Amino acid sequence: MAKPEKHLFVCNQNRGPGHPRGSCTQSGCASVMDELMFEFQKRDLMGKFQITVTGCLGPCGSGPSVLVYPEGVMYGRVGKEDVATIIDEHLIGGKPVERLTLPAELW
Amino acid sequence: MAKPEKHLFVCNQNRGPGHPRGSCTQSGCASVMDELMFEFQKRDLMGKFQITVTGCLGPCGSGPSVLVYPEGVMYGRVGKEDVATIIDEHLIGGKPVERLTLPAELW
Repeated sequence: MAKPEKHLFVCNQNRGPGHPRGSCTQSGCASVMDELMFEFQKRDLMGKFQITVTGCLGPCGSGPSVLVYPEGVMYGRVGKEDVATIIDEHLIGGKPVERLTLPAELW
Repeated sequence: MAKPEKHLFVCNQNRGPGHPRGSCTQSGCASVMDELMFEFQKRDLMGKFQITVTGCLGPCGSGPSVLVYPEGVMYGRVGKEDVATIIDEHLIGGKPVERLTLPAELW
């Protein structure tokens, strides 16, 4: 496989229900990952862009977290319904989705 | 936590002994992660640089794999003994370690 143009890291950390730090699994990262895989397969984006599941990315209270490199843009509170927008505007269009981007104090 | 200057992704994929694709767990990624955490704590590098464990990064036959962003440099066959060099030369010195960098056809 070749180096991707953009690389998405999807946090899959789980701390269980009720944990004070929260976690991306508890806030719904599985449905975000499912939607990403569905859209990538439908649009044949595998290879051009890469998706990797990760352990804790850091901003646990604002999950689900999705991090995009090489820009280093951290998205928070990502929902299934945001996936097409991230693909259209950021991955393909080259412009990060401002409304989903976490502020500098969180990452 | 603030956005790190450099972000290390350490593959933790496991396919079990004898699997034809191999995996970073089978090739020894746990000792690389241990050494990274040890050196980061000893040198107080947490925050300036970030370490994240991941699922499969792709070049399974050349693991353990360590990926550094924002440069997008993929290291292969990383051993515990390479960790100080990566920290000294790449993270602090700013110059990727050529002898560990995978060729373009692998990533």
